[in-house]
Amino acid sequence: MGAAVEQPKSSGKQEFSWPKGYRGWGIAAGIKKNSKPDLGILSSEPPAQAFGVFTRNAFKAAPVLQCQAVLAGKNTVSHILVNSGNANACTGERGLSDARRCCEYLNEKSRSPAAVLMCSTGVIGEFLPVDKVLGGIDRLLDVNSSDYAEFHECILTTDKVEKLAEKTFHFSLGEVRISGCAKGAGMIQPNMATMLAYIATDIALPADFQASFFGMVERSFNSISVDGDMSTNDTAILLANGASGIAFVDLNEIEQKTFTKELDALCISLARQIVRDGEGATTCIQIHVEGAKSETEAKLAARTIANSPLVKTAFYGRDPNWGRVVAALGSQELSIHPDQVDVYFCGTLVFTQGMATEYDEKALKEKMEEPELELNLNLYAGNSTWTYWTCDLTNDYININASYRS
Amino acid sequence: MGAAVEQPKSSGKQEFSWPKGYRGWGIAAGIKKNSKPDLGILSSEPPAQAFGVFTRNAFKAAPVLQCQAVLAGKNTVSHILVNSGNANACTGERGLSDARRCCEYLNEKSRSPAAVLMCSTGVIGEFLPVDKVLGGIDRLLDVNSSDYAEFHECILTTDKVEKLAEKTFHFSLGEVRISGCAKGAGMIQPNMATMLAYIATDIALPADFQASFFGMVERSFNSISVDGDMSTNDTAILLANGASGIAFVDLNEIEQKTFTKELDALCISLARQIVRDGEGATTCIQIHVEGAKSETEAKLAARTIANSPLVKTAFYGRDPNWGRVVAALGSQELSIHPDQVDVYFCGTLVFTQGMATEYDEKALKEKMEEPELELNLNLYAGNSTWTYWTCDLTNDYININASYRS
Repeated sequence: MGAAVEQPKSSGKQEFSWPKGYRGWGIAAGIKKNSKPDLGILSSEPPAQAFGVFTRNAFKAAPVLQCQAVLAGKNTVSHILVNSGNANACTGERGLSDARRCCEYLNEKSRSPAAVLMCSTGVIGEFLPVDKVLGGIDRLLDVNSSDYAEFHECILTTDKVEKLAEKTFHFSLGEVRISGCAKGAGMIQPNMATMLAYIATDIALPADFQASFFGMVERSFNSISVDGDMSTNDTAILLANGASGIAFVDLNEIEQKTFTKELDALCISLARQIVRDGEGATTCIQIHVEGAKSETEAKLAARTIANSPLVKTAFYGRDPNWGRVVAALGSQELSIHPDQVDVYFCGTLVFTQGMATEYDEKALKEKMEEPELELNLNLYAGNSTWTYWTCDLTNDYININASYRS
Repeated sequence: MGAAVEQPKSSGKQEFSWPKGYRGWGIAAGIKKNSKPDLGILSSEPPAQAFGVFTRNAFKAAPVLQCQAVLAGKNTVSHILVNSGNANACTGERGLSDARRCCEYLNEKSRSPAAVLMCSTGVIGEFLPVDKVLGGIDRLLDVNSSDYAEFHECILTTDKVEKLAEKTFHFSLGEVRISGCAKGAGMIQPNMATMLAYIATDIALPADFQASFFGMVERSFNSISVDGDMSTNDTAILLANGASGIAFVDLNEIEQKTFTKELDALCISLARQIVRDGEGATTCIQIHVEGAKSETEAKLAARTIANSPLVKTAFYGRDPNWGRVVAALGSQELSIHPDQVDVYFCGTLVFTQGMATEYDEKALKEKMEEPELELNLNLYAGNSTWTYWTCDLTNDYININASYRS
């Protein structure tokens, strides 16, 4: 993780830039009620290979279905069109044709050589204001902005901070860059929805990189929990345009591994930034399970603990409440023996061999005042591990989510 | 449900009594730090057939293991010994031998013809204060109390109200009664644990009634959610002593069905009382799923919605937020088609054919001010149904659960 450059919370925008060949910009098109940027384009010239991972929710929003349809055919992309203020979810056939119409309009107006993808976030169940989007596209194409970073402002909803990460490689063949941005503060926002992530690189990637990207998303964006809910619009897209003149397949083995490892770390960095900005959160907790019988069991164990309201409220109270961790763990069908589980809070062993240890509670409570906390478990059932990130559950979460539409 | 007599919230104790042959009483043995009743006995003379359903948590508390061991052998019981203030959970071998010792002591002192079961609720990870329990048993056996109802006070922890239900039948062979009590306000309490339920009847039940009881517990105590967490100590026990002189097998078919139906309703009544008293809850929500492909899918759908923090906070805000319901439903692998799901809030159809309906929001918000709310779904995928009960998620839940041990 340390290797991926995480931007400081408050001043990320100034230092952020996209790799070669990318432009990202946006405007306020009036989709949101306030006058904040709500319509943006991330463009690539030359067109980029696109890899996507989408929500598994049965109620997929129209833009998710649009992206999936495009990526099922060819997968070179000229533009990603994003909007906030309206999720275009639960809008039926009309929603899908609205999304298609916006993409076709941008495609024609910009004379794109490749496809357009659309992503939306915002209110569920209302039709997309298509006229505003089309008018906004005209204005966007007129802009010759040098602020190529403002794209990601258009996808923010209740986010308090921008989530950005970038990485530069100096390979034997030359320089390669990756830049990414993400949004999300709850898996489903109060009146906004969704986790969105866009990662762009100027390397050329082979078509079979989709499997690698899927694994990375699984270990990052799919291993975080704010409230355990799954959005109708969740989308992560990786673009690779080859503008650096370098192809992944031409890297040597060590460089390939480095690139893959750092891209993985960058996804995790963005994912962690989402958790840190979780609705009402005061702390981010890394839950690391080792010694599981299988990766599936390690993940199930970590996720169950990450989603337990009692564990999350205990962290809010900065309480090393191993009883709740153990009870959450035991609620799943796992290959564990209750007498062979170790639980560590912030490096302190608090539970072993079925019973509490005698630890210095005062010292541990002090450690738990840190802004980022660690919970480690060893299940002594095998060699598989998984890491999950969650935030605490606080009064602010309730206040944010109980006041929707009221 | 209507047929089972639910006691009013504030004055349940006065009107409650156990069926023929049962005595329930308790004392303050000093296990709790306050001076409230914390040790009690529910006795049956003659000994009762016992049927038990226990937590599926891998970290089962010592008293759960003790009960399971007893019921695996014979299943006639003279006494249930209960304590609050200490869960005797995560206490290893010593915890189990402590529980056994208390049962043996009561067994010898009372010269019981049948077994003793023990149930504990309270702090996890501390050893049972055995001397206080044994001293308490001596005192309990000296008491000739006429207040046979006070037993259930001994199992209360953070419960704000008593949970009681009873039913009298006038069968052709004579009168039969069922009485039950329960405790629980969170699936795991802040520093107490557990859902406990005791149901006693003076009918004689056949040994194979265990399967029926299991089904009843599945439809009641296992179909409620306060926070989705599962305790290490959850226990439901049904006692049947035959003191009425009537055996279930001698009832006619209609009477047998009536008895089973009413026992089922009594379990649901107790379970709903637990939800109503859920930590911080302001409303109880009945979630009814119909048209599911299988009972398993109906239950999964209902449970997922019942456990969604976003759905629960929406109910706190009295907001008919079908988007959150639909997103929770869609997060599971279910045989549903997104365009063929109906969602009703308090009888009003708000979502159908993949989209919102045009409903009177003001009228619906007024309906949602009722103390008990209904959420109905039709999945149009089959003929199976399931009902779940949940409560809303409020600031008080956070306050109760974040302050443990601090």
